[in-house]
Amino acid sequence: MNVAILGVGTVGSSVANILKRNQDIISARAGMKINPVVGVVKDLNKKRDCDIPLTDDINSVIARDDIDVYIELMGGVEEPYRVVSQILKKKKAVVTANKAMLAYHRYDLQNLASDTPFGYEASVAGGIPIIKSLREGLSANHIKKIIGILNGTSNYILTNMMKNSSKFEDVLKKAQELGYAEADPTFDIGGFDAAHKLLILGSIAYGVRGKPEDILIKGIKNVSSEDIFFALDFDYVIKLLAIAKKTDGKVELRVHPALIPKDNIIAKVNGVMNGISVYGDAVGESMYYGPGAGGEATASSVIADLIDIARGNKNPMLGYQPTSKLEELELLPINEIKTKYYLRLRVEDRVGVLAKITNLMSENHLSIDSFLQKPRQSSDEYTTLFFTTHISLESDVKRVMGLLQNEPYVKERPFMIRIEG
Amino acid sequence: MNVAILGVGTVGSSVANILKRNQDIISARAGMKINPVVGVVKDLNKKRDCDIPLTDDINSVIARDDIDVYIELMGGVEEPYRVVSQILKKKKAVVTANKAMLAYHRYDLQNLASDTPFGYEASVAGGIPIIKSLREGLSANHIKKIIGILNGTSNYILTNMMKNSSKFEDVLKKAQELGYAEADPTFDIGGFDAAHKLLILGSIAYGVRGKPEDILIKGIKNVSSEDIFFALDFDYVIKLLAIAKKTDGKVELRVHPALIPKDNIIAKVNGVMNGISVYGDAVGESMYYGPGAGGEATASSVIADLIDIARGNKNPMLGYQPTSKLEELELLPINEIKTKYYLRLRVEDRVGVLAKITNLMSENHLSIDSFLQKPRQSSDEYTTLFFTTHISLESDVKRVMGLLQNEPYVKERPFMIRIEG
Repeated sequence: MNVAILGVGTVGSSVANILKRNQDIISARAGMKINPVVGVVKDLNKKRDCDIPLTDDINSVIARDDIDVYIELMGGVEEPYRVVSQILKKKKAVVTANKAMLAYHRYDLQNLASDTPFGYEASVAGGIPIIKSLREGLSANHIKKIIGILNGTSNYILTNMMKNSSKFEDVLKKAQELGYAEADPTFDIGGFDAAHKLLILGSIAYGVRGKPEDILIKGIKNVSSEDIFFALDFDYVIKLLAIAKKTDGKVELRVHPALIPKDNIIAKVNGVMNGISVYGDAVGESMYYGPGAGGEATASSVIADLIDIARGNKNPMLGYQPTSKLEELELLPINEIKTKYYLRLRVEDRVGVLAKITNLMSENHLSIDSFLQKPRQSSDEYTTLFFTTHISLESDVKRVMGLLQNEPYVKERPFMIRIEG
Repeated sequence: MNVAILGVGTVGSSVANILKRNQDIISARAGMKINPVVGVVKDLNKKRDCDIPLTDDINSVIARDDIDVYIELMGGVEEPYRVVSQILKKKKAVVTANKAMLAYHRYDLQNLASDTPFGYEASVAGGIPIIKSLREGLSANHIKKIIGILNGTSNYILTNMMKNSSKFEDVLKKAQELGYAEADPTFDIGGFDAAHKLLILGSIAYGVRGKPEDILIKGIKNVSSEDIFFALDFDYVIKLLAIAKKTDGKVELRVHPALIPKDNIIAKVNGVMNGISVYGDAVGESMYYGPGAGGEATASSVIADLIDIARGNKNPMLGYQPTSKLEELELLPINEIKTKYYLRLRVEDRVGVLAKITNLMSENHLSIDSFLQKPRQSSDEYTTLFFTTHISLESDVKRVMGLLQNEPYVKERPFMIRIEG
């Protein structure tokens, strides 16, 4: 089986190298030799970490008749979508690690692929076979909920904030030095990377068709040391969670920092690692853990897709047969989300303030589950109040936060973190 | 697709019920309806928790032409092997949850199955899709090591001993009351159940052909409260581990209680849950967590196999193409295992004893990594010594234990636990 690698960066080089290094076992498992016959790059002068023939002429490679599978590792959205569409129209198989392209075009690609193999295991959670587990391993289940830690950069930062009581900015800087965060980290710490992956998982579980702009995406940059202290005190950890959940026939898809009880297995996914808990109606909870990024780990998933293609496996791209009606559930509007909430308020430390706040909450249907106020520093005329609520409606919480912000005794903009589990 | 269920106990009933309850989504994913058309039972008078037609005549069911897949849930080894062989010879697909049959006959069955679909996801770790993850998801990797918590009963007992500082006998009794342990718990707490599952995983990873009697199997019944205290003090937990590991071109397969550092993700698999860490040369560590038993969880895996068959997937049974030379590695003899060890010694508390013991250890190539002696009770003339060693040879450790046992100052038989990670 001849494969072309479109984009020979870290992952592309690893794919070529592993196909060579593990040729023995890959051939025995696939039933044939898998040959990387050409790589397509933009800059032929740049040094690459593998020794396959290279070209900068992608059209000549797409035109070749001797290539069985194209591995798309170009990055971007519209350009790879154009290239992949062209390849699928020629009925040639495609394997991709491109989550952004799938976040926008997965249903277009499903239509184009129909009977042509299309693998994308590497697009979610790097080396973890979560697409396979969800689409095939748990195929008997109605999925109740997916809770994923899908972004290693954010998880590294939050883990280090918790373990060393460090500040967000300091840990981010360290992550950048170690290569765990980009110079511009917005895509990772802003929740967008996790959101792309969540949309893919949401399609397999529920057939939802949303795009990134349709779902709730909040990043971690406003999580403070005070939130971390509260979490530790109340036996929670804070994680950036990607959540897909079926509620009253609609689907919630949301990415945001969340408090989760520290005994939950997903709370134990630390550092740059990824983890995904899946709740099925038959199986109950199962959890998948592993490296979410890195050349070799991502290449492991790319090659697993190649071996699946070589074996002649026929899993429908998004888990549903094209002949079947998709589950196609609608997205739940963000304001209709119901969960528990944590609120942090910076307020004047004087008589009557707490009564005003609790009155305002109760008038707006927020019921308090726990409350913490620590003795203030003597030099400080403000104090911080921490609340958690019983299950509440997102719109009620937002209204309360808006009202509180306008109260004269409230110093900073109130901050909220959703609680999960 | 018509299926027959051979053995309609907890799992069989759950299979029938889920096929009915989740018919919508299963059909959409499989591309066809999956109908449980008949169940075979020994006792027609016993009440069952599902409403499929039943018979006690297995031969009439095997003779039917309208059945596409047979689900073997009979239990036992030779009788189901005989039945399954008969079915495979008729080129009819089989799905089984029978780990004992596979521990003894997996290669015989592979030969018989050749092109006939044969699913056994449910045989290892219940609802966790570990067969699929290892055989398909990680197929690009040379597997370096598998560390599994594969027996829920043992894990429940050890978890409770650690959490509540309880004694083995007390927790076992509680587990029996809760239905987590059988009246005769030997198969679970003796490590045999985990060993059956380990042999299956070992075949997928390494093509090893051992049977249960060829590998090291130790249970948990001699793990004492003192071992638990030591573990807690030194940041370990004690788990019954099933380990498959490639060492110098041979394969270690072993089941025994082990100390593992508490920060390891597999150390966090608690209660009746199962977990399997797999180390691949490309992916690094990935871990799979979920329920290892229970009717619905096990049925989830059985039905996933049915859907795979309906989709026309073609994964070679043990992961290697029949046309390929298997990896077929040899088992490492038990005495050649090298790992770290924990030793507990009950000895007379007098001058010179420790010197004698450490001399004896050093003469036999055991190098001490850590040592603990707690102040003895005033009423007691004996004291307990705890050692951990650097990496040592199993045969050296056993020799030392044999020698110590004959020393006059040693009161009880020395006890050893291997250390992992």
